[in-house]
Amino acid sequence: MEINPQDTPSNLFYKVIVGSVVPRPIAWVSTVNPAGQPNLAPFSFFNVVCSQPPTLLFCPGVRGTDEGDKDTYVNVMATGEFVVNLVSEELAEAMNKTATELPSEVNEFEYAGLTAEASTVVRPPRVAESPVAFECKVSEVITVGDGGRGSGWVVLGEVVHMRVHDAVLGEDYRVELDALKPIGRLSGPHYSRVSDRFDLFREDSQIGGGKASHDR
Amino acid sequence: MEINPQDTPSNLFYKVIVGSVVPRPIAWVSTVNPAGQPNLAPFSFFNVVCSQPPTLLFCPGVRGTDEGDKDTYVNVMATGEFVVNLVSEELAEAMNKTATELPSEVNEFEYAGLTAEASTVVRPPRVAESPVAFECKVSEVITVGDGGRGSGWVVLGEVVHMRVHDAVLGEDYRVELDALKPIGRLSGPHYSRVSDRFDLFREDSQIGGGKASHDR
Repeated sequence: MEINPQDTPSNLFYKVIVGSVVPRPIAWVSTVNPAGQPNLAPFSFFNVVCSQPPTLLFCPGVRGTDEGDKDTYVNVMATGEFVVNLVSEELAEAMNKTATELPSEVNEFEYAGLTAEASTVVRPPRVAESPVAFECKVSEVITVGDGGRGSGWVVLGEVVHMRVHDAVLGEDYRVELDALKPIGRLSGPHYSRVSDRFDLFREDSQIGGGKASHDR
Repeated sequence: MEINPQDTPSNLFYKVIVGSVVPRPIAWVSTVNPAGQPNLAPFSFFNVVCSQPPTLLFCPGVRGTDEGDKDTYVNVMATGEFVVNLVSEELAEAMNKTATELPSEVNEFEYAGLTAEASTVVRPPRVAESPVAFECKVSEVITVGDGGRGSGWVVLGEVVHMRVHDAVLGEDYRVELDALKPIGRLSGPHYSRVSDRFDLFREDSQIGGGKASHDR
């Protein structure tokens, strides 16, 4: 089937994109407003950018219900800081509670029964229960669309500090998947575990030194 | 454990980031050079941006082996077009073959035994065997880092056309996961299936109309 986005209701076209670009990693983003009030919300339009400087990005959209700006976006623009906390299987229910659209004055840490732990470099607190937390400073924000329904932003942040639970970090900085127990975002109410795995080994490079490069 | 990226060898810090920001969706990106020679390579620093206009992004890094520019990046900058093909379980082996660093003149479609199918709007061909293909026009490219080892780019593209295999698209534009059979990128040689799933239902919004919003 061929689909022209111009001829398709945008909510249906979006449904196909979000349903097929899967599984997506989840950034559970903590921020503060200028008065120090914390916010916490999950975003699955999230990924690594590069390693030098170590950079992550996430894309907060315009809020679906009222086309307002999400608290996360407002706080990031006002303070230039955020923390990406990662979500383990055990934290899935709490993460889902913080996905509720709540008034700005609600503290999602309290709402979901989580512990706010002071960060080392930035002002927003980390989720103490989260296995991995990346403290970030905003390096760039790109606006996509006209700011109305369906528009979004790309927020790039440099990782200035990281905290990882000891059980997750193995020898030689190897992240232990069975300790991390990450979850992936699918569409609608669906999520996936990474329990069903397989390995593929790359052929050696035919450029440069010939060693197979695996991490990208 | 607290980790300061400034005090940590960048390859080890990167290993922790790439090992923990998982599972990542995979963009199998086809491009052409100005002479029409096709290229095909997988990128897992990839995600949705927003729906209006429908926009995807991926982040090609500087090539690890020789710090050269990847063919995909060179072609995208020269032509302004690319196709994101999605990777099903059945295509994993072929995708892995195209992850090999090959000289520019090698046609990865032929190298991996894939069928190049003409796109509808853009010049790069689609992977006929891929269940979903998004034809994209570059809307913006952001450079991150100084262009040396570890640097990268964020390539944003507007989806101008899409092709989906009939079996994957269910009623009302629902993407059928058991037909799509997507795979997620983990670290090293590891990949995950999305066979092990669970559901979480959101609480109703406390803002706007009150309906729970699921797709982000």
